[in-house]
Amino acid sequence: MADLADALYTTPDMSAIFSARTFVQRMLDVEAALARAQAQAGLIPDAAAQQITDACRIERFDVDAIVAQTANAASPVVPLLRQLSDQLDENATPYLHWGATSQDIIDTATMLQARDARALLHRQLVALGTATATLAERHRRDPMAGRTLLQQALPITFGLKAAHWLDATARQLDRLTALDPSNSDIIAIQFGGAVGTQAALGEHGLQVMELLAGELQLAQPDLPWHTQRDRIAELAGALAIISGAVAKIATDITLLAQSEVAEVAEATPPGKGGSSTLPHKRNPVDAVLAIAAARVAQSAATPLLDTPAHEHERAAGVWQAEWTLLPRAFHATAAALAYGTASVGGLEVDTDRMRANLDATNGLLMAEAASVALAPHHGRLRAQQLVEQACRRATDEARHLRDVLIDDADVTSAIDETALERLFDPTTYLGGTDQFIDRALAHFQRAAAAPDA
Amino acid sequence: MADLADALYTTPDMSAIFSARTFVQRMLDVEAALARAQAQAGLIPDAAAQQITDACRIERFDVDAIVAQTANAASPVVPLLRQLSDQLDENATPYLHWGATSQDIIDTATMLQARDARALLHRQLVALGTATATLAERHRRDPMAGRTLLQQALPITFGLKAAHWLDATARQLDRLTALDPSNSDIIAIQFGGAVGTQAALGEHGLQVMELLAGELQLAQPDLPWHTQRDRIAELAGALAIISGAVAKIATDITLLAQSEVAEVAEATPPGKGGSSTLPHKRNPVDAVLAIAAARVAQSAATPLLDTPAHEHERAAGVWQAEWTLLPRAFHATAAALAYGTASVGGLEVDTDRMRANLDATNGLLMAEAASVALAPHHGRLRAQQLVEQACRRATDEARHLRDVLIDDADVTSAIDETALERLFDPTTYLGGTDQFIDRALAHFQRAAAAPDA
Amino acid sequence: MADLADALYTTPDMSAIFSARTFVQRMLDVEAALARAQAQAGLIPDAAAQQITDACRIERFDVDAIVAQTANAASPVVPLLRQLSDQLDENATPYLHWGATSQDIIDTATMLQARDARALLHRQLVALGTATATLAERHRRDPMAGRTLLQQALPITFGLKAAHWLDATARQLDRLTALDPSNSDIIAIQFGGAVGTQAALGEHGLQVMELLAGELQLAQPDLPWHTQRDRIAELAGALAIISGAVAKIATDITLLAQSEVAEVAEATPPGKGGSSTLPHKRNPVDAVLAIAAARVAQSAATPLLDTPAHEHERAAGVWQAEWTLLPRAFHATAAALAYGTASVGGLEVDTDRMRANLDATNGLLMAEAASVALAPHHGRLRAQQLVEQACRRATDEARHLRDVLIDDADVTSAIDETALERLFDPTTYLGGTDQFIDRALAHFQRAAAAPDA
Amino acid sequence: MADLADALYTTPDMSAIFSARTFVQRMLDVEAALARAQAQAGLIPDAAAQQITDACRIERFDVDAIVAQTANAASPVVPLLRQLSDQLDENATPYLHWGATSQDIIDTATMLQARDARALLHRQLVALGTATATLAERHRRDPMAGRTLLQQALPITFGLKAAHWLDATARQLDRLTALDPSNSDIIAIQFGGAVGTQAALGEHGLQVMELLAGELQLAQPDLPWHTQRDRIAELAGALAIISGAVAKIATDITLLAQSEVAEVAEATPPGKGGSSTLPHKRNPVDAVLAIAAARVAQSAATPLLDTPAHEHERAAGVWQAEWTLLPRAFHATAAALAYGTASVGGLEVDTDRMRANLDATNGLLMAEAASVALAPHHGRLRAQQLVEQACRRATDEARHLRDVLIDDADVTSAIDETALERLFDPTTYLGGTDQFIDRALAHFQRAAAAPDA
Repeated sequence: MADLADALYTTPDMSAIFSARTFVQRMLDVEAALARAQAQAGLIPDAAAQQITDACRIERFDVDAIVAQTANAASPVVPLLRQLSDQLDENATPYLHWGATSQDIIDTATMLQARDARALLHRQLVALGTATATLAERHRRDPMAGRTLLQQALPITFGLKAAHWLDATARQLDRLTALDPSNSDIIAIQFGGAVGTQAALGEHGLQVMELLAGELQLAQPDLPWHTQRDRIAELAGALAIISGAVAKIATDITLLAQSEVAEVAEATPPGKGGSSTLPHKRNPVDAVLAIAAARVAQSAATPLLDTPAHEHERAAGVWQAEWTLLPRAFHATAAALAYGTASVGGLEVDTDRMRANLDATNGLLMAEAASVALAPHHGRLRAQQLVEQACRRATDEARHLRDVLIDDADVTSAIDETALERLFDPTTYLGGTDQFIDRALAHFQRAAAAPDA
Repeated sequence: MADLADALYTTPDMSAIFSARTFVQRMLDVEAALARAQAQAGLIPDAAAQQITDACRIERFDVDAIVAQTANAASPVVPLLRQLSDQLDENATPYLHWGATSQDIIDTATMLQARDARALLHRQLVALGTATATLAERHRRDPMAGRTLLQQALPITFGLKAAHWLDATARQLDRLTALDPSNSDIIAIQFGGAVGTQAALGEHGLQVMELLAGELQLAQPDLPWHTQRDRIAELAGALAIISGAVAKIATDITLLAQSEVAEVAEATPPGKGGSSTLPHKRNPVDAVLAIAAARVAQSAATPLLDTPAHEHERAAGVWQAEWTLLPRAFHATAAALAYGTASVGGLEVDTDRMRANLDATNGLLMAEAASVALAPHHGRLRAQQLVEQACRRATDEARHLRDVLIDDADVTSAIDETALERLFDPTTYLGGTDQFIDRALAHFQRAAAAPDA
Repeated sequence: MADLADALYTTPDMSAIFSARTFVQRMLDVEAALARAQAQAGLIPDAAAQQITDACRIERFDVDAIVAQTANAASPVVPLLRQLSDQLDENATPYLHWGATSQDIIDTATMLQARDARALLHRQLVALGTATATLAERHRRDPMAGRTLLQQALPITFGLKAAHWLDATARQLDRLTALDPSNSDIIAIQFGGAVGTQAALGEHGLQVMELLAGELQLAQPDLPWHTQRDRIAELAGALAIISGAVAKIATDITLLAQSEVAEVAEATPPGKGGSSTLPHKRNPVDAVLAIAAARVAQSAATPLLDTPAHEHERAAGVWQAEWTLLPRAFHATAAALAYGTASVGGLEVDTDRMRANLDATNGLLMAEAASVALAPHHGRLRAQQLVEQACRRATDEARHLRDVLIDDADVTSAIDETALERLFDPTTYLGGTDQFIDRALAHFQRAAAAPDA
Repeated sequence: MADLADALYTTPDMSAIFSARTFVQRMLDVEAALARAQAQAGLIPDAAAQQITDACRIERFDVDAIVAQTANAASPVVPLLRQLSDQLDENATPYLHWGATSQDIIDTATMLQARDARALLHRQLVALGTATATLAERHRRDPMAGRTLLQQALPITFGLKAAHWLDATARQLDRLTALDPSNSDIIAIQFGGAVGTQAALGEHGLQVMELLAGELQLAQPDLPWHTQRDRIAELAGALAIISGAVAKIATDITLLAQSEVAEVAEATPPGKGGSSTLPHKRNPVDAVLAIAAARVAQSAATPLLDTPAHEHERAAGVWQAEWTLLPRAFHATAAALAYGTASVGGLEVDTDRMRANLDATNGLLMAEAASVALAPHHGRLRAQQLVEQACRRATDEARHLRDVLIDDADVTSAIDETALERLFDPTTYLGGTDQFIDRALAHFQRAAAAPDA
């Protein structure tokens, strides 16, 4: 009985990772791994661990019943253990869930999901970066207006704009790589028992913690972290920032796709983005949904940073809210990446229109370039004054700045007509654009090549 | 493929209102009502309206296909109309969706859901209020410590605490009543056509708007409101505040249920709230989940108030994010109310423990009362000094304040021992408590009795 | 030692209302009014009330010392009372602050500020509405493109766009009028004593509460509301929504002011909005700052809705955070209104450019109008097909849709050339635009005329 | 004309870093460093750079005028440059601000503040950690109740609780160390010119960027980052998480300081925390303000993560909102740390009361320990059953669990009375507590010893 919009703000892959069924399987994985770790440590019989491991298979469980009974104890672990115990004999039952508390299972299962979700987002970011890198390379020298406060300011190239998107994507890849369990202890197991002392395990707690982390391929924390949630906040922050990086791309695309700008359009396979009653429209559907998904992701993620403290040794409410907020943030981040990549990947770029828009200000956009060119001859101050005068005249008389400057003897005495003409070629005033594009491409190359789980 | 926690933060009733299936039905309701309104206005043939109405039945639609195709056009209306057209002949097809735009259908369908959800929350609040009123009445004279900054301060009664919960509940009822479509234009139809001019309807737009509102039992707005979203913000604000009122109750309960306070406990039917390994625990499960649900509700609601503007005549992203944020806020508010009502409704109140806790400070809690009683005899200033001295002695010597005061001739000369004894009866120092309880009860009575759709 | 940006996100008027000095004066106003109310009720001597009233004048107080000592007791009332007591003799001292608690004074003083701030915002909204109404009236018939998802869709008029801004402004005026203390109990006094029982006043609490509300011209609540903060949330919600209404206007202006759209520009008095190095820029400075201020306002307001519960009878942290969040929300809302009004008030509107932009799609924007006009002759279905075909040809051949239609005998057989020509006049396809503008103007008239404190 | 609460949510040190005066100085530092970097690169004359550097001294500037004129151009740089130009002659004026844009100056000046603020927070965290480490060490073996969902669960020691606070503090130190400009490129210069191409510098842009970073001791970014704000989001996220770590400590303290728990109290120097009318209260004033300050910090920080995209090459509103949100987040984080450290540093710990509270459940808290002890003799299942039975009897008969167990032959056959007695010593059931404390202490040692700027 899901809502219609639920499917809009996830992807099938991410949905599979966080489904109730997978979550139950992950909890079973934790119970099984715990038993094996304790058997390795000599705390429980190997046969018990084996029996528990055999039983921890999702096919044997009634997931709907677990969902339905979760509210009763404010924990899915209680109904899970009930079903699990039913499958064990007395040789295994006493060793099940030994020394563990519900939160150990739930937090660790969540981290298993986070581990898979992290890897999925990593792959999605590589796809987004690949599509973006293509644009950066292809349009490296295609000039367009750079815009500040939504006003044309100076020329850039579309390649540079794409390079900014790309460098941000590369930074997000770095961010996700840093979160890989082999690189940091953020995506870590939880194991502490009821109050985080591992009391039931006597002196063997640390050993079991290490073995358990190994079994599950998760990081090992210094201490149990039941009510120290900076790990969760860190993940949430990463999702908010990744979503923001996608939203930036999508926002630029919706702005460039405006009817009056029309420098890009999304690909329109049949049935997509069009409007039967408004035939001229080319709605940037994927960019719009990317913006929406990013907003949904951030709305779920930031409450995990802006949060009351978790009380004492287990929180009474704030923790339980995490159960839905963190998954939702992952779902919607994946959706944002999917929409963003679709938008970028199919983007139709109109470089003629870009240049036409650049020329729409009668050359005023190149005033700074003219001023820089005149400076060696007249000094910067005088050069600026000359250009400012010319700009006023160009505006008042609705003429091209170039033509006004050609009329000015102080200008033509300094630079000849060909040079002046060249000044108004936007590709001559691009500064470090090429180098920046190279840097972004190299960064993405490095980031995508870094080993990832 | 829902997440395990999804079911935790909704109720079956609210889930039914916002399910994909119901949403599709609501969109169909809007299309049908629009056709009928236009037929009434003489704009389309009655037979066409009849045919459209007949076709708008959910059984005839493939909801899953609509869900799956929504992303394609960033709109569920496009696939909906495709299926709907297939069921009409050429006498009706041209009149379908006449003069409407996707957003008209989606916003109005959402408002139909909001109308039903509002009524549901109203019923839930009446249930919460009824349970709370019982506590306020029953424990009207049962003293307990009032606590400020979590420190015991002065006596109140548990009835007064419940009366505060109740009065807040009554205010939320008033809030919901004010949102009823017959009382305000918040829950209103949307009908404007592509850019809000109702252009295709020529001069008949306003008439159709009125007829449509009547057909759907929704309010009629002054103007179409495609990108003026204060209505949505208003609803979201109401949900955040209602959730907050529940969270207040639940927070007080978790604090009162602490092992060291132990003044209340939630009812524990078999299998609920207990812990097999920790037999002494009486987890306030419902209160904990109410806090969590309120937090989830607020997390979905406040982004609708803290929002970028909707651009021009239809927003590119912010609107589409509403599709999931508003339903989620309704879902979780309903859950918060359900948990809160369960917690309050089954609450076991230990009035002996309340009184014992009150006595734990050796009478210091009644210092202000002593000071007030001595004032007529010694003047307020001197009275305060006398009591402050006595408090210091009581603390230093670990004696009851009453016994220290009895030793003081300045005190006993003013009031006799019986009166002094009476001073330390907390029920004598409750000020307007009774009147406040009466006020809250009366407020709830009025609020619950107000006619509601 | 304020930050540079502090001044940017307030106005001098709002700053005066919430300054430390004014807040201290407001706390003194409450202490004085409380004494007078208690004298009227016969609880304390008139002379004491008079002496207290005389002493409660800000000139006598060291505000900096109060600020500096506030952290010590987590309350400004403790140092305030110290300074105040120093000015009283023993005939008044014992009657000072009688039966009150710090929170009574702080909450009521805050509500006095809220009362003044509400009235100020009301005046600002009237100014914004007045400027907006001028645009709605003046540009009532000036056509421009309506835009959905930032794509041109169908024509509207600039007057209609302004009417939407205006109607939203009028709704905000209604909202503020509803919050006036004479219309609701939101802006209410707080008076309950330490735990909200008014215990020290015996049976006279309610009477004093009524007298106090009268003295301060604030509403009277049913019950003290120390830890029931829906009033604060309500105010915060209003500020978030008002800010959002301004941000909507400002966002539309920044989009319309884009170089490629250029339909509006902000007035540029000397030194404003220009850029020395980029002479062609006309930065919409006020709109940009309005957007920023609205965002700052919402960032401070929404945490007051998305909040943990206030514990028991006084909160340990959440309440103290309100002390800065609520003022900040008021400050920035005032700033948003000031910037928004400056932007709207000085707006230069280029109606030629609006029309030119409308024509840029070679008439495709009017396809729906053509389809509507052909329907009576060919039936709607056939009419739509004819127009769709024509649109495709117009696009493929880069011709005006009108010219393509003129070539089509099926079209010219139905409507003659003059009628066809007229079809492409956007002012003929505006539906209820005029009526909507009238409605918005009337709504604002009503809202602004409603009596306001 | 600051608000009273402004001083409450900052510290003098942090206030000095972000004051208008310091911000103007930092902008001057950037202008001067830019001139020197360009002189080094041979782009401008040494003498001009020298003259500019000499002029960039705060004493020469009218800060109030800059503040007042900032709104005019939505930039403090315009009035700053006006004042700065007035002090230069024609040999230097043309070289001032060469190739830079307002945002270069503002962002870099902000990063200089962030650099100093980071170092300040680092020192504050060391102080907090030091105070916390003392508690962890001193109370290593002092048992207290571990509490889950605010219910007593199993014993921990107060040292372990402090060790959790400490380990979180150490993680925050690591976080801040990672943000040091020598360790990451988060706190980086901004230098790109109007649209981020460094066009005016031709091919020398990257060289100047490197020299400028060196001059200012900031990191050098790959690309200008005018509208890629993940750096700001990263800082904001860190502040939210650090504040959260403090709030956790403060929340635990307010809960432990409750009248009914009374295990800790804040130090009360004269005039602090007491209440004249309620002499028994020991308000945990600093903890309360720490919670409030953390909330204020998070409220300012999270909007920087939950943010609309920055448009094109400079944002129209979102960027300008950062100017106040980021400083406010720093201010309040510093306040939270100051209050938190004061609270922890002066904490009075009542270890007797801790033990008394532990004993309040008649030994039920140790049920798990009994079960573990009996398992080797009876098997785990039977052991659990035995203990559960005993728990029920203990509860029903209000006896101590130990006494009930002693009556049970199945128990005494397995373990003798001395061993049974020992079982109820909470210090025998602490698992890895000691090791965890060691780990936290070592972590803090390492973190505090790591070289920091």
